[in-house]
Amino acid sequence: MKTTIRLFALREPTGFDNFELRTHSSHRDVRHLSLRRNHPKMPHIPLRPNFFLRRRYLPFPFLLQPKFIHEHSFPSSELDLSNPTFMIYGSNTGVGKTLVSTGIATSILSASEPSHCLYVKPVQTGFPVDSDSRFVYRKVSEIFRTGKPRDIFASNRVVKASKEVLSAATELSMDNIGEGLGFRGSWCYEETVVGKGIEEGKGFKLICLTLYGWKEAVSPHLAVEREGMAVDDSVLREELGSWLKVSAGAEKDGGDEKGAVWRLVETAGGVASPGPSGSLQCDLYRPFRLPVILVGDGRLGGISATISAYESLEVRGYDTVAIVLEGLGLQNEISLLSYLRNRLPVFVLPPVPEEPSNNLIDWFSESSKIFSSLQEVMLSYHRKRIQSLHDMRKKASNIFWWPFTQHKLVSMEIVTVIDSRCGENFAIHKVRHNKEMLVSQFDACASWWTQGPDAILQIELAREMGYSAARYGHVIFPENVYEPSFRCAELLLEGVGKGWASRVFYSDNGSTAVEIALKMALRKFSFDHGLTDFENVNSSGVDEIRVLALNGSYHGDTLGAMEAQAPTSYTGFLQHPWYSGKGLFLKPPTSLISMEIWNLCIPDCFESDNFGKDDLQFSSYGELLSRDRDSSDVARCYFSYISNQLLEFSASSPSKYIGALIIEPVIHGSGGMHMIDPLFQRMLASECRKRRIPIIFDEVFSGFWRLGRESAAELLDCLPDIACYGKLMTGGIIPLAATLATETVFNAFRGDSKLIALLHGHSYSAHAMGCAAAAKSMQWFKDPTTNINIEHGEGKLKELWDMKFVHQISSLPAVKRVVALGTLFAIELRAKGADLGYASLQASSLVQQLREDGIFMRPLGNVIYLMCGPCTSQHFCSQQLIKVYQRISKFSEAWLKESQCGQTYGNQRF
Amino acid sequence: MKTTIRLFALREPTGFDNFELRTHSSHRDVRHLSLRRNHPKMPHIPLRPNFFLRRRYLPFPFLLQPKFIHEHSFPSSELDLSNPTFMIYGSNTGVGKTLVSTGIATSILSASEPSHCLYVKPVQTGFPVDSDSRFVYRKVSEIFRTGKPRDIFASNRVVKASKEVLSAATELSMDNIGEGLGFRGSWCYEETVVGKGIEEGKGFKLICLTLYGWKEAVSPHLAVEREGMAVDDSVLREELGSWLKVSAGAEKDGGDEKGAVWRLVETAGGVASPGPSGSLQCDLYRPFRLPVILVGDGRLGGISATISAYESLEVRGYDTVAIVLEGLGLQNEISLLSYLRNRLPVFVLPPVPEEPSNNLIDWFSESSKIFSSLQEVMLSYHRKRIQSLHDMRKKASNIFWWPFTQHKLVSMEIVTVIDSRCGENFAIHKVRHNKEMLVSQFDACASWWTQGPDAILQIELAREMGYSAARYGHVIFPENVYEPSFRCAELLLEGVGKGWASRVFYSDNGSTAVEIALKMALRKFSFDHGLTDFENVNSSGVDEIRVLALNGSYHGDTLGAMEAQAPTSYTGFLQHPWYSGKGLFLKPPTSLISMEIWNLCIPDCFESDNFGKDDLQFSSYGELLSRDRDSSDVARCYFSYISNQLLEFSASSPSKYIGALIIEPVIHGSGGMHMIDPLFQRMLASECRKRRIPIIFDEVFSGFWRLGRESAAELLDCLPDIACYGKLMTGGIIPLAATLATETVFNAFRGDSKLIALLHGHSYSAHAMGCAAAAKSMQWFKDPTTNINIEHGEGKLKELWDMKFVHQISSLPAVKRVVALGTLFAIELRAKGADLGYASLQASSLVQQLREDGIFMRPLGNVIYLMCGPCTSQHFCSQQLIKVYQRISKFSEAWLKESQCGQTYGNQRF
Repeated sequence: MKTTIRLFALREPTGFDNFELRTHSSHRDVRHLSLRRNHPKMPHIPLRPNFFLRRRYLPFPFLLQPKFIHEHSFPSSELDLSNPTFMIYGSNTGVGKTLVSTGIATSILSASEPSHCLYVKPVQTGFPVDSDSRFVYRKVSEIFRTGKPRDIFASNRVVKASKEVLSAATELSMDNIGEGLGFRGSWCYEETVVGKGIEEGKGFKLICLTLYGWKEAVSPHLAVEREGMAVDDSVLREELGSWLKVSAGAEKDGGDEKGAVWRLVETAGGVASPGPSGSLQCDLYRPFRLPVILVGDGRLGGISATISAYESLEVRGYDTVAIVLEGLGLQNEISLLSYLRNRLPVFVLPPVPEEPSNNLIDWFSESSKIFSSLQEVMLSYHRKRIQSLHDMRKKASNIFWWPFTQHKLVSMEIVTVIDSRCGENFAIHKVRHNKEMLVSQFDACASWWTQGPDAILQIELAREMGYSAARYGHVIFPENVYEPSFRCAELLLEGVGKGWASRVFYSDNGSTAVEIALKMALRKFSFDHGLTDFENVNSSGVDEIRVLALNGSYHGDTLGAMEAQAPTSYTGFLQHPWYSGKGLFLKPPTSLISMEIWNLCIPDCFESDNFGKDDLQFSSYGELLSRDRDSSDVARCYFSYISNQLLEFSASSPSKYIGALIIEPVIHGSGGMHMIDPLFQRMLASECRKRRIPIIFDEVFSGFWRLGRESAAELLDCLPDIACYGKLMTGGIIPLAATLATETVFNAFRGDSKLIALLHGHSYSAHAMGCAAAAKSMQWFKDPTTNINIEHGEGKLKELWDMKFVHQISSLPAVKRVVALGTLFAIELRAKGADLGYASLQASSLVQQLREDGIFMRPLGNVIYLMCGPCTSQHFCSQQLIKVYQRISKFSEAWLKESQCGQTYGNQRF
Repeated sequence: MKTTIRLFALREPTGFDNFELRTHSSHRDVRHLSLRRNHPKMPHIPLRPNFFLRRRYLPFPFLLQPKFIHEHSFPSSELDLSNPTFMIYGSNTGVGKTLVSTGIATSILSASEPSHCLYVKPVQTGFPVDSDSRFVYRKVSEIFRTGKPRDIFASNRVVKASKEVLSAATELSMDNIGEGLGFRGSWCYEETVVGKGIEEGKGFKLICLTLYGWKEAVSPHLAVEREGMAVDDSVLREELGSWLKVSAGAEKDGGDEKGAVWRLVETAGGVASPGPSGSLQCDLYRPFRLPVILVGDGRLGGISATISAYESLEVRGYDTVAIVLEGLGLQNEISLLSYLRNRLPVFVLPPVPEEPSNNLIDWFSESSKIFSSLQEVMLSYHRKRIQSLHDMRKKASNIFWWPFTQHKLVSMEIVTVIDSRCGENFAIHKVRHNKEMLVSQFDACASWWTQGPDAILQIELAREMGYSAARYGHVIFPENVYEPSFRCAELLLEGVGKGWASRVFYSDNGSTAVEIALKMALRKFSFDHGLTDFENVNSSGVDEIRVLALNGSYHGDTLGAMEAQAPTSYTGFLQHPWYSGKGLFLKPPTSLISMEIWNLCIPDCFESDNFGKDDLQFSSYGELLSRDRDSSDVARCYFSYISNQLLEFSASSPSKYIGALIIEPVIHGSGGMHMIDPLFQRMLASECRKRRIPIIFDEVFSGFWRLGRESAAELLDCLPDIACYGKLMTGGIIPLAATLATETVFNAFRGDSKLIALLHGHSYSAHAMGCAAAAKSMQWFKDPTTNINIEHGEGKLKELWDMKFVHQISSLPAVKRVVALGTLFAIELRAKGADLGYASLQASSLVQQLREDGIFMRPLGNVIYLMCGPCTSQHFCSQQLIKVYQRISKFSEAWLKESQCGQTYGNQRF
């Protein structure tokens, strides 16, 4: 795959005469006029004719259209980091962004080594009266022509313009506007050379671009409203992304240009001014997260404007590299530096002459040292950034001790450097063909199943996090109340706790939530069964008190949570010599999609030989959930298995008790994404309730729409006494967990002494940021106005995974089973011997391939999975599923050949 | 204590004639002039004479000086919430804040029921040409005089002005400027009545104030630079706070005025414009956290300016109630509403006439409905806020399950509603004499010992949290690296891990950090002592593997952490039937301050009868730390105790092992703030190292300057193999923990199989926000430029607790012992029988009293403590210590009388 486009492989242009800038086209003046023109009471200022002094319409195949680039199947979300790329944001409108761009471009082209500059103005209003790209193009040319002898080729072009621009251009006898040249939407181009122009491998180039131009000098979203030419954010990003792929042709094959290509992207208006769709520009361009040069405001009030603009960039995750502002004698820079505490430099430019007759050449000359220092800062930042990405990759495996990771198996090459995330996607660092890249990848491992926010919610949450940290930092919880802790508890009780829970106990993660649940349940059991009284702190007559749990379930890695799990490779002496497995562990029946059918797999220990096809095969998951099954043969079989097991256990000793039931409802996550028959779990709960054994649902994985409902208990159609929540509860950005309980459980801890209370707590219990994130996310996910996957009145997510594809995948030879529910899609690959289970490396090659396709996956042994957020669109999910389908098909072919046993696959018992 | 000042108890003013506003003093115009006047190239516009058309100099004792108020010993940090109080912030300078204030004030005074308005402009530059308080005063009077018949008394005054203002005033024949009237700094006053003025209990009052005026129309910090009259932030806040205490005299005694008093505080310039000291106004006024009316910007670029200003307020924890802006035909409000997603309303005012001759009366009339709607929104917000504070208090104990809390003992009245925190202080809600109050309290419980940031760091961290959430949200850690996780690990290894640790394992809290440490240590021990090999996952021949630990130490509430603790009331059957206490638990010798002397208390089980005074008493903690003691008799005694205990244990069975040593270095926190003899802990470590038993330091409490050093290991002067950190690591705002280990510990988990790896992890391992907060805080705390308590080259905090006071307190009869180290100051009260230990309620009354003094304390049984942050000033600490001293002195007197055994106190064994 070719990763670069050689925009600079130009035909040698013919020379051009000099041109003169009309005095009135001085950038500052135009801006001023355009500002005032907008005021209803200002006189209409006519567009001036002869605006473009020279135009040439070349059949320029070298100027690639974004559309053309798109067809080259580059993932549009790649960003070439090899060459310095910066975004010019303004702290307000009219603060001189274009002057700064011009100054930086001049500095770039003044280098001793060949270097080039691509300047992009994605959105221009007031066009063509205002054209920042033209200003840069002309002013830079003029500067070099008048002051600094240099061989330069420069061009300026417009990619698309509104009809109003076109007709104004026609009116102004700007004929021949490109439609006839075979370049849809491209209509105006000019170029010039300074000095000798460029020769093979020498010289300097400046390419200026306006992507979209509207006539009215208003905010772009208003211009669209008035003139049309709507542009979706994604389209604009894709086009900009494509243009940012230009390079100087550094590859071996035929690259004839040398030198770095700097890219400057200049925004319109202020940091949070709307773009064409109405999205704020700081949000619109966020997926690129280009380092920012912030043009500050040197006027009265400018300190505030600059700081606020800087902070808006900060709470969107941008890195601001430098602030540069016009010095107007107010010493705003001193306040800025004090505020910034040396985080970044502030450059002060001389006051810009306001006389319309001033062509600014002297000003640029006066400012050139400042721009050259600024450019040095930019270059140094750029180098450090690249260096840091490399260093981190190199050093990470020497200082980290990663969880669940055999370090010996992790080579430096495997280590992924994550630059950032935006909604469902990571931006990760890659080096391809010696090129530094930032590549977008769908976070299919859902960052250990916490994935929640789309790009919009992420930014909303970021602001909320800033607010909560500033308002509360952390404040102590016991005996206290503060708004986020209260709001979060209310929402939990109205949501996942509805109909049963009345108390919220906060902790930090799933494991601690489970430890707390166990303490609650065991006390409640002891209390109900008279095993202890509050006088006698140490109970006598109890040999052992165990939990009832299922093989393959997982509840966390702290000792208490481990003890509630059946022995596995996670729990052996090597992992914890103190683990003994304090449970009665049952084998669960499971369900799965295989060969396009939902199959029920009942373990051998159940007496199930006489079941018919109707009992074991289903056309949809809905059938498995049906309450009709409660009176089926299968139900009777489950009942006898459960009662026998309980009977057997209690028969072994009169002082052995089952003190709690703990299950992961519907799906065993870490255990390998196994779907447990909901009927079996419902019956377990019912049998325990009969025996006054408290029921714990561990919903850390399943809660908050992971499985398509806010609570997986809805799928089981039964309620717990205690339930644990974590992961997605905060929208997936910050640790917080909660254990919910009924009032009767709570009452088992009420008494006259503090020693009877639940003496458990963590330093950051109910921390404000976590509670605020949870409150915000819970509301966001269930609100049809913010979550496209929720329909009014429906308490469930839309089907996110296209069932056609799911079924097709389930029929592939290498696929043993498929799980598709809510935000989860999982595949178990067929495997044998050493390839079975958690330690399996079988999926590695597949996972690596899918990473190349832009899906960041982590296998669970021989199980691979995709997990999206509750707001991820069906369309996006389908796109990912197609990639998986394609890779698995090929994988299956290879697998078939290798295993040479194509006939043996089919339904198998789990 | 009298909590209100009746500013409104005026003498009935004599009537005044109408006055005419000069056309040029139209607010908008003045603002415009002042803006331009500042430009170096603008012509000088002279101050206009006759600016104050009417002046009266009354001997007004009713106008209280802030100084006078201060003497009344109101804690300046109280805020009366009874009456609606709002802050008017501007999204830029010149957006019409004062017009909005005027409109709101007019609306307030148009109510049918008597109501009053206090308008405060704390900081005014360009004075007296610009005077926003005068504008409000005059314009409101004019509006009512011309349009709405109403009985109003209005006044305007200036509290302090710079010398330049005074001399300009003199020059303009503004003589008699108040100096002679006995009111220092007060120099100009005017008042007027509209209609009949006010009668007893009737009528409406408008009081306008400018607190500080400077002549030059520049940013206040520049004005101070040029004209003097520097004002500390704290002074400005105190003065403003005092003025905000005015009420309409609602108390029984002599209150003769009715109606609500609305308070409007108008800032200067934009949200982040500097105040007189250079602090940004949004920071300067943050301790009040008044709800904000944000005046938006209706101009081109105004969407961005308004949003950014709003976000700067958000990341400082302000609540913005409404945005109001001038409609200039650009429909900025539509974009704002879309951005705000119904979070708050946006009001649009008609365009403000720009003709200098327009007196704006028609404009205000046209806008009156909008201002009245705005005022309704403000009132509704105000009521909801009060209601919500009450509701939360009422409902909290019904939906929360607080950690470590016996709910039966928590009545609604005990519940504290925390509105916010700012640095070391909470703002809590109180109702006093039927008045709603926000009261500032020092967070002496340090929110369970996490307290770290001062007000500056809190805001820095808030921005950092916004940034990290926006840049990363959460991204998965294993096999990956991203900047905050990397930076944090580097800083940990360079800081607390320096000289020994090479690996960082992240988790969420102290308890999980300990669980991980135990897994590490036990594996390392098994590995070193051949108890297992990697083939044989389940080791044979091991009966039991225990930890060596100290009585009274605490490591967390998850089962594994509990198992490492000696049996206590936290660990009985009632708390966890699975707890068995997997340790060999030794009794430790402790040290304490009593009767002004550091005493060593050696448990009876040590053979220590023959120690002299030199062995047991010390004049400073430094002596206890001295390595000279390593060869003392006491050391020999410790050695024999330790070796005997270990020998005894291993003699009991050949397959029983001590697999780890785990200690809280220096102080047992939760166990009751007991200082362990550092010599004893050092010797324990040394004996374990000899036996190849891995050493775990649980530094969750002691780490990061809590005890005056970055690591408490520095005090012990010995190093662990594994150590746990949490709490203060993130600066005290967000949960994150880390377990550090040496490379040899790490190597015990390296192998060819994943099953040998440490299979432990949590969903939010190394979450970006936590790591970013930790990285920022670690640097902040140790940097002398950001932490006043660190001296260059010194790796320790200054002494924060004045030793004179500490010694005096240690001599009080009711005080058993005192601990003072680093940021911790603790007192154990003498107690007997039921009052001993964790369940003791003895300290309750004392704690309640100290809360009245502004210290929010939570007792640990009969131990009370103060804990500050690493950056808290010595001065602040001393202030708190004095309050404690005063209360404890009285408590001691009562205690002496009650116990009638004044002679028996003295040195006692622990």
